[in-house]
Amino acid sequence: MTALRKGTGASPGLAAAPAYFIHQDHYTPKKLEAVNTTGEIQRFRSAVAQAQEEIEAIRVSTEQKLGADKAEIFEGHLMILEDPDFIDATEEKISDEGINAEYALHEVSTSFIELLQAMEDELLQGRAVDIKDVAGRIMSHLRGVPHLDLANMTEECIIIAEDLTPSDTAQLNLDVVRGFITEIGSRTSHSAIMARTLEIPAIVGVGSALRSLPADAFIAMDAEAGSIIINPSADELAAFQQQKQQYDTFKAELTKLKDQPTFSKDGKQVELAANIGKLEDVQRALDNGAEGIGLFRTEFLYMGRSSLPTEEEQYTSYKYVLEKMNGKPVVIRTLDIGGDKELPYMDLPKESNPFLGQRALRLCLDRQDIFRTQLRALLRASSHGNLKIMFPMIAVIEELLEAKKLLAEEQAKLADEGIAVADRIEVGMMVEIPSAAVSADLFAPEVDFFSIGTNDLIQYTMAADRMNETVSYLYQPWHPSILRLINMVIKAAKQEGKWVGMCGEMAGDTTAIPLLLGLGLDEFSMSAGAILQARQLVGELEQAEWAAYAEQALRIRSYEQVTAFVQQKRK
Amino acid sequence: MTALRKGTGASPGLAAAPAYFIHQDHYTPKKLEAVNTTGEIQRFRSAVAQAQEEIEAIRVSTEQKLGADKAEIFEGHLMILEDPDFIDATEEKISDEGINAEYALHEVSTSFIELLQAMEDELLQGRAVDIKDVAGRIMSHLRGVPHLDLANMTEECIIIAEDLTPSDTAQLNLDVVRGFITEIGSRTSHSAIMARTLEIPAIVGVGSALRSLPADAFIAMDAEAGSIIINPSADELAAFQQQKQQYDTFKAELTKLKDQPTFSKDGKQVELAANIGKLEDVQRALDNGAEGIGLFRTEFLYMGRSSLPTEEEQYTSYKYVLEKMNGKPVVIRTLDIGGDKELPYMDLPKESNPFLGQRALRLCLDRQDIFRTQLRALLRASSHGNLKIMFPMIAVIEELLEAKKLLAEEQAKLADEGIAVADRIEVGMMVEIPSAAVSADLFAPEVDFFSIGTNDLIQYTMAADRMNETVSYLYQPWHPSILRLINMVIKAAKQEGKWVGMCGEMAGDTTAIPLLLGLGLDEFSMSAGAILQARQLVGELEQAEWAAYAEQALRIRSYEQVTAFVQQKRK
Repeated sequence: MTALRKGTGASPGLAAAPAYFIHQDHYTPKKLEAVNTTGEIQRFRSAVAQAQEEIEAIRVSTEQKLGADKAEIFEGHLMILEDPDFIDATEEKISDEGINAEYALHEVSTSFIELLQAMEDELLQGRAVDIKDVAGRIMSHLRGVPHLDLANMTEECIIIAEDLTPSDTAQLNLDVVRGFITEIGSRTSHSAIMARTLEIPAIVGVGSALRSLPADAFIAMDAEAGSIIINPSADELAAFQQQKQQYDTFKAELTKLKDQPTFSKDGKQVELAANIGKLEDVQRALDNGAEGIGLFRTEFLYMGRSSLPTEEEQYTSYKYVLEKMNGKPVVIRTLDIGGDKELPYMDLPKESNPFLGQRALRLCLDRQDIFRTQLRALLRASSHGNLKIMFPMIAVIEELLEAKKLLAEEQAKLADEGIAVADRIEVGMMVEIPSAAVSADLFAPEVDFFSIGTNDLIQYTMAADRMNETVSYLYQPWHPSILRLINMVIKAAKQEGKWVGMCGEMAGDTTAIPLLLGLGLDEFSMSAGAILQARQLVGELEQAEWAAYAEQALRIRSYEQVTAFVQQKRK
Repeated sequence: MTALRKGTGASPGLAAAPAYFIHQDHYTPKKLEAVNTTGEIQRFRSAVAQAQEEIEAIRVSTEQKLGADKAEIFEGHLMILEDPDFIDATEEKISDEGINAEYALHEVSTSFIELLQAMEDELLQGRAVDIKDVAGRIMSHLRGVPHLDLANMTEECIIIAEDLTPSDTAQLNLDVVRGFITEIGSRTSHSAIMARTLEIPAIVGVGSALRSLPADAFIAMDAEAGSIIINPSADELAAFQQQKQQYDTFKAELTKLKDQPTFSKDGKQVELAANIGKLEDVQRALDNGAEGIGLFRTEFLYMGRSSLPTEEEQYTSYKYVLEKMNGKPVVIRTLDIGGDKELPYMDLPKESNPFLGQRALRLCLDRQDIFRTQLRALLRASSHGNLKIMFPMIAVIEELLEAKKLLAEEQAKLADEGIAVADRIEVGMMVEIPSAAVSADLFAPEVDFFSIGTNDLIQYTMAADRMNETVSYLYQPWHPSILRLINMVIKAAKQEGKWVGMCGEMAGDTTAIPLLLGLGLDEFSMSAGAILQARQLVGELEQAEWAAYAEQALRIRSYEQVTAFVQQKRK
């Protein structure tokens, strides 16, 4: 029988192999009165110790197999095992309520997971997955049930599971595992990100339809298209293998573009940069041919810890990235936290509409202590490379002027202290609030560059929370309204001789790139994995031709029609 | 001693009189085990019955003194006394938990009040105040403590209180009470709204500074400026009385404009309309010289009840307003609910950012049963007056086209049924989402009119929740970005020969009106109380001159500078 299923392609590639089903059990412990709470606490500690040993072993093997940066996630897991909010809280629950360790662990971990999952931030949601992973491991030990072992698989297969934890994914024996398919998850879920890191094909969110397959099913998966063929016929398999061959050739061609500059067919040069959120991402950016860092999110420095990072800690991180990029431009965005991205040690008030609340620069201008520390660290790091500083969430000119004033003050202080700072540091702003886009001409004289943050710009322009499924149909990146705002920003910048980048997801989208090239965007910053394909695409496009098409697209009245228009012109 | 205090002017006017302090006690009952829960429930029921009698008496006297519409709030109070979610819940709490009536009442009412207060919607927040008022009254009877009696005051005074409940305010003996000042509250709090209805000067949000005044303090209050003089000197009092005289003369002049059309000095005619949210508001609109209803919010029909309103109920309400307006235009907005405006019987999902969620038309297109019922009621009512239908929260053209399609379908069905519908009903849309403003030219061919909803447009354009104090500095109505969006909308409409109104608070603001007149706005819809002053203001302005000034204002880079610019040109 041949059947076809669809899911979301989470990590590109094609694979064909027998299915290997992982059946995860969902154990919910009962609440029991503990006969002896001291004994329960000891039992819990022993389970934690066993989990610790296990995770350390995974960390070491991951480091050997995949390198230090890939192993970093397990350092996070080990930190969870030492986190008083998690470990001490569970022990307290056991003793205060006189209950069994399983139930206390379940309650504490679930409340954490729910809290974190409710937040928009990818980092925090990732942390929820980490806690789930660690809690599951401790639970296995409490129950004496063996934890899933994916490291020792020996037969070629495609894994099918409800979901995979980060530690499951990291342990996959890549000698035999050809890809994986999960019932739940999205492109941004932790296992999806891990799959892209491991460069293993993955399809997520297929639902429970594959559960009923026979154990000996054979799977051909195309993670580009998100399609799955179950038990393909000989002809289908042959066609699939040919397609896989083409894909592999295409990938090989792309890697040749790694160290090339980016030119359109008619010779317009643009910069393709990477968005990064962690120090480890820098190497990946370079490996994928990034010509710079277009967005370095600094939030990671502030998260998963119990106090603010010091100036020195920040300086070290910024310096690392700047040196690693070796003179290539690095746009570092100042702290974008607040609203939904909470820091437990900052005690931010709960807001009814966090996306419309005191986020990012708004918070930094209110908490100048935090902001000045970051500015000092950035200024000090500037002498180690090509730093550009970018302020997020600016709506009105006063915010930009105030941020620049504080930067100048810190620069003057450093000069007084005799500390080296680069002669010239470009200072720019994100354009992610409609107000800033509509009056970009009023901002342009005051900045060195703009970077359009489309993720937020689209959500505010459409008044649609991009994390809310019911209004996700309004997330329309190349809707004429969005294109017009982008056009206003680019025109305003050119008028003042400034450059414009884009650091939203749209910058790496193959439908958007021709239009953005046409509108005159200078820099495209995207996930590292999208750069080579973007470079190839730009090479196929005539900038002058797309300038005319983009002008036409501004007059088209719907997103769907713009999409069709681009497809037609690309043919 | 003469001292000056500032607060927020909530209802205009000047008054000078001795202070009368109302000291409200904040009683929080202790949780006690009930000896006899049946007895507690009886005690509770008896307190409810006494409250009922009292409120009914206030309702009757208010109706006699102030008219039926002013008494309507107490019908709401009586309904609360019959609301099972409130009354039955309290009784259940008493019996289930075996506790005292006071504590059960406190718990149930507090949880309601907190829930409602957390919501953005003015109607719901008003309902919180109503519940507080009613619960306080029941609590007085439970405790055997007399409730504040403001109806029988005999001496001329200005009342100073922490806050006033709606029933306190309605009972004020206006023969002697010259004004009131409250420690808490804002322009939109219930007592402020009531004060405007009663046309009594009120200043709110002055803080606790007046608490320490001697009991014989004399107060001169200017509720235009929000200023309070404590124990004015003879000279100060004379000056104040002169100012009061001028104000009274000014008010008298304004009333002469009631039945006049609205022309600028150079003869450009505009329409000044009223925003209404309840049936009683229609009379007030007419009394204040409204030339039409620019925004009839239909939410009141859906709120404070346990099921959806029927087509017949809606038809009756729409017909009432249309007939009462007697041929003057009435713009009725379809349901703007969802997100933060919850309807208990609709079971809407909780959203992380309700302002960016499934609100208004988004919800109506999803819940077509509700929408079609409203459309039918509107169409049927159309034969009774000059109806214009308006769709809220449109971001993309597909939404408008779908709404129009459903309207046409219902119209066709009514035609088949032989039910009369007006020959011509204008259909328009709110422009309150940046996307709609930026691409107004793409929408213009598909509508008969636009109405700019500035409250939401500003909050989305600035990405700042207008209910969130920490980002309230970004609520900048005539910021150049907002003016530019308004300009785009008006230009796009004129191009297609369509008219443009505005139904946000900005339309009634005396700083904004000159700019809006200059930009070519056709209709200004505002609180009824602002109409006469707006008419006078428009009469003083040269439209052609302000067209040029508005053009200049679009190039000014900050809100503050635009404000100064308007003030300077107005001199």
